Amino acid sequence: MKQLRLEPGIVNYPMPVALVGTAREGKDNYMAAAWLSMVSHTPPRIAVSLGPHLTRDIIRETGVFSLCFPSVQDEAVTDYCGVISGTKADKSALFSTFRGETGAPLVQTCALNAECRLNHIDINGLNETFVGDIVGLYADESVLTDGKVDLAKLRPLLLSQLDARYYALGPAAGRAWKDGVGFRQRR
Amino acid sequence: MKQLRLEPGIVNYPMPVALVGTAREGKDNYMAAAWLSMVSHTPPRIAVSLGPHLTRDIIRETGVFSLCFPSVQDEAVTDYCGVISGTKADKSALFSTFRGETGAPLVQTCALNAECRLNHIDINGLNETFVGDIVGLYADESVLTDGKVDLAKLRPLLLSQLDARYYALGPAAGRAWKDGVGFRQRR
Repeated sequence: MKQLRLEPGIVNYPMPVALVGTAREGKDNYMAAAWLSMVSHTPPRIAVSLGPHLTRDIIRETGVFSLCFPSVQDEAVTDYCGVISGTKADKSALFSTFRGETGAPLVQTCALNAECRLNHIDINGLNETFVGDIVGLYADESVLTDGKVDLAKLRPLLLSQLDARYYALGPAAGRAWKDGVGFRQRR
Repeated sequence: MKQLRLEPGIVNYPMPVALVGTAREGKDNYMAAAWLSMVSHTPPRIAVSLGPHLTRDIIRETGVFSLCFPSVQDEAVTDYCGVISGTKADKSALFSTFRGETGAPLVQTCALNAECRLNHIDINGLNETFVGDIVGLYADESVLTDGKVDLAKLRPLLLSQLDARYYALGPAAGRAWKDGVGFRQRR
């Protein structure tokens, strides 16, 4: 084990990929993004950081967006939404959609969808972090177990940015807020 | 396929788990956290959202912290750092450490470590999002392939919060910024 110093830059861990859904003048748009995280439990709030893209302009205008989580079988169309700008291609017909209360497009084939109202924008260098209140949360009944989203059924798509690879989720590796209690007792 | 409306709350996708490392008066502390994401490419900047914990107080005081990424084999000790507060237990001797330029503890058994200087704090409900400039990035040479962090070697630990499960990373599921080009050509 020898730790090497790398050039400070992107930290290469796997992140869930979402389609950021927006709508302007009746036309839906989708952009793949992976710099996202919950930031608040109460109220439920999530943040996604975006470079200078059309999606950013539309969220500023409309104040709403969705985060639609594709499964591994949707890898190619998701990647398409990451390589082609909405300024160059009409992505509005890529997916069957449904709507909640914000009007942002929610994707039928994404088994997990969140719709958000923009709370504020946190500027970070050339990126902007869009912090949204989760006002609607939807899951396909096929991925629920006891009313909760079951990741083994959802099969989320993960991105490893620096090596430009998507990954599936692997096997369970332990019980959270439980195995640590056993660790304490063994010490 | 039938989409059901859930109560707005935590969106259950898998997230990488990090140990947030801090030091005060010569004593190191670690807290497991999974609400984290890159937020800026230039400068390299990362954010982690924390509830009201000791770690938050120490980062406010010192202005520095580390994000140390454990592998699946470190699941139990990582979970321990998530269930036991630094106000109740001395976690300083849990890991062998090394230091970079900030003085925040970096963990030898974590094959990927980032050290950060606090840039600003974004308040989100009861949580606070600590946004830090990545000033040091370290990887164990055993997880590098062609000088880049190789997730197949790193074996990152992922958390699914709502079902309280850790997961390993699964098999590769596609090529980013490439499969979407083929998708476009097929359309």
